[in-house]
Amino acid sequence: MDPNILTGLLTPASSKIVFIILDGVGGIQVEEKGGTELQAARKPNLDQLAEVSSCGLLEPISPGITPGSGPSHFALFGYDPFQYNIGRGILEATGIDFPLTERDVVARINYATIDKNGKVIDRRAGRISNETNERICRKLKGSLQLSRAVEAIVESVKEHRAVLVLRGEGLRGEIEDTDPEREGVLPFKPKAMIPEAEGTAKLVEEFISQSQNILADEPKANMVLLRGFAKHTRYPSMKERYGLNALAIAAYPMYRGISRLVGMSVVSSVSTLKEEFKALADHFAEYDFFFLHVKQTDSRGEDGDFDAKVAVIEEVDQFIPQVRAINPDVLVVTGDHSTPAKLRSHSWHPLPIILHSQCCLIDPVKKFDEVSCISGALGKMPSVQLMPLALAHARRLTKFGA
Amino acid sequence: MDPNILTGLLTPASSKIVFIILDGVGGIQVEEKGGTELQAARKPNLDQLAEVSSCGLLEPISPGITPGSGPSHFALFGYDPFQYNIGRGILEATGIDFPLTERDVVARINYATIDKNGKVIDRRAGRISNETNERICRKLKGSLQLSRAVEAIVESVKEHRAVLVLRGEGLRGEIEDTDPEREGVLPFKPKAMIPEAEGTAKLVEEFISQSQNILADEPKANMVLLRGFAKHTRYPSMKERYGLNALAIAAYPMYRGISRLVGMSVVSSVSTLKEEFKALADHFAEYDFFFLHVKQTDSRGEDGDFDAKVAVIEEVDQFIPQVRAINPDVLVVTGDHSTPAKLRSHSWHPLPIILHSQCCLIDPVKKFDEVSCISGALGKMPSVQLMPLALAHARRLTKFGA
Repeated sequence: MDPNILTGLLTPASSKIVFIILDGVGGIQVEEKGGTELQAARKPNLDQLAEVSSCGLLEPISPGITPGSGPSHFALFGYDPFQYNIGRGILEATGIDFPLTERDVVARINYATIDKNGKVIDRRAGRISNETNERICRKLKGSLQLSRAVEAIVESVKEHRAVLVLRGEGLRGEIEDTDPEREGVLPFKPKAMIPEAEGTAKLVEEFISQSQNILADEPKANMVLLRGFAKHTRYPSMKERYGLNALAIAAYPMYRGISRLVGMSVVSSVSTLKEEFKALADHFAEYDFFFLHVKQTDSRGEDGDFDAKVAVIEEVDQFIPQVRAINPDVLVVTGDHSTPAKLRSHSWHPLPIILHSQCCLIDPVKKFDEVSCISGALGKMPSVQLMPLALAHARRLTKFGA
Repeated sequence: MDPNILTGLLTPASSKIVFIILDGVGGIQVEEKGGTELQAARKPNLDQLAEVSSCGLLEPISPGITPGSGPSHFALFGYDPFQYNIGRGILEATGIDFPLTERDVVARINYATIDKNGKVIDRRAGRISNETNERICRKLKGSLQLSRAVEAIVESVKEHRAVLVLRGEGLRGEIEDTDPEREGVLPFKPKAMIPEAEGTAKLVEEFISQSQNILADEPKANMVLLRGFAKHTRYPSMKERYGLNALAIAAYPMYRGISRLVGMSVVSSVSTLKEEFKALADHFAEYDFFFLHVKQTDSRGEDGDFDAKVAVIEEVDQFIPQVRAINPDVLVVTGDHSTPAKLRSHSWHPLPIILHSQCCLIDPVKKFDEVSCISGALGKMPSVQLMPLALAHARRLTKFGA
């Protein structure tokens, strides 16, 4: 549905919407465990919530498509993940919670080792330590001086990874990667893909040659390889689209970064689940929409640690009563995608969702898991359709058509 | 989803995908039989497969749309059936397994009877025998001589039907039908719909007038009526789209023809189910994707013969163990559309699907039929979304977005 139609239906309300997003919560059965992670978890509070709610399955992007964290969250926030597929550079910047502006072109940096002929001999510079990375970033920042009134910002990520932000007027992102993605060859030149990007490409060349000089005496990280160039464009905010003052509560910087892209305020001083759920209660009066992100379900899934993922689900379950006590008008519990411990990676499998409100149809589902929720009232729906549904349950949408 | 996005996500793998397509397998209940054809069939192997798989319903095209064989198969192969809706001429050519080239313009021929004033008095020439049809086609082929370097190929289909293929450079398909679709009137002239097609329209006029002369002494088939002109355009192949070396195993020529349009290799020396399933095993090492087509479920449905359709399903069931024995990474059993014996024709009803792999979510479905599969993990999905899902289960797709 055209998001402008939705925006046109908005009606003022004081209702509050809470999304509790268990990253990668979906799983598939592991035979010796007798089910999926959600089936194995003891989670009386989530199951009781399912019992009085509408349940279903979310299709993160499209059948068979395994999403990265960017597209899967954009879809949850109601942004078409194909239209708003952000580049790697932007994602790295959001990953360190770096505040971007519309004057910025961003790229991912790999620090690399080149030999005396300029050929890449290690694309990851021996995975230098975070400390070395930070020292090198400082060294570059202190010495870089581009010819035009363009600022070159180098921000450390970790190991061999960093972010380049070129900030200035009239910059373009249509620039080819310089990372050859293999060793034994010269890095590529930063070629403009369109004539309008030639000025920016020249600046990138300057950046590379200055960096190479500055890093010449480094034993390992003596070169920068760049990829995923993209101009940062402003997203329509959740305030503009949905009339919502939104708050993100996330321990991991990347999710705060993604939230900021859609105009959310962020709570950054949280690291444990307890702190996250306390922040929800503490800020409940101030905002209309709350995105509370639980990272560990995904991390333990990627570890392939079924039992540890179960334990995270069981821990989240403990906090459900205090969420219900603050009485949000709409309470959604789901994930952004599946990360089955069996696969040790993100996957394409649909994942269960609970939607609770005073006006939800109560279906026969009594447990929050992949199999039980097949029979739910929501059926199987694309993640991108969740926001309109949440707004409706929050009584924030008027009738379409007379 | 844009198929280019899918192509961009491909990752090399040696996995194998098998689609067993029971043409027209879906049905509706016949009261005195106590259910649908699938519900009535004794099919322990298919039911056991359903029990350890993800099941669901396929929506061939869109709710309420009864597909022909062309669109329903294109959708199964992941080609948008609205975008790739092939013309009648092309379908007739694929129906006789005629290898088309990109230089061809194709039309369907009806042999017809005209009176001495040239008016059509029988649009089907009294449904001449196949033998007469073949004799007439040979007669035309032996005598036609178009003025430009364009070959006029006439291929017999059956009864009054044949195919015209004009093969040469720069031909166009934008030509109006000459078949007036009623009797007592003159055939239409083959008018060009656009100026660029005028040269081809002139060649069609030549073809018609020469044919009329050659057939002048025929008692019944003394005229050709043409419709469904179309230029054959190359389809993106399954190799280009999905990186798959695909093999079609089909006893009926039309399905080999459709498969060839999407770049599959074909096994043509099979006529029984036993031969088809043997061919699957024999060629299993050579290809990545296998389309095994069972025609008789559809034929018996069109006959309105419920019991005979049940018997075909039961026969297919016997071959399931030998398919599982060769251990494909992804095994799909479904159909292209429903052909309920009760309706004696193709229908729009969704039909059941089984998808089996090492990473499928096992749902509560224990039987392969229209009613049981409603509760499946796949929900109800458009056929066109099946290929991406099969590729995902074959671990042939990487993550979308960072």
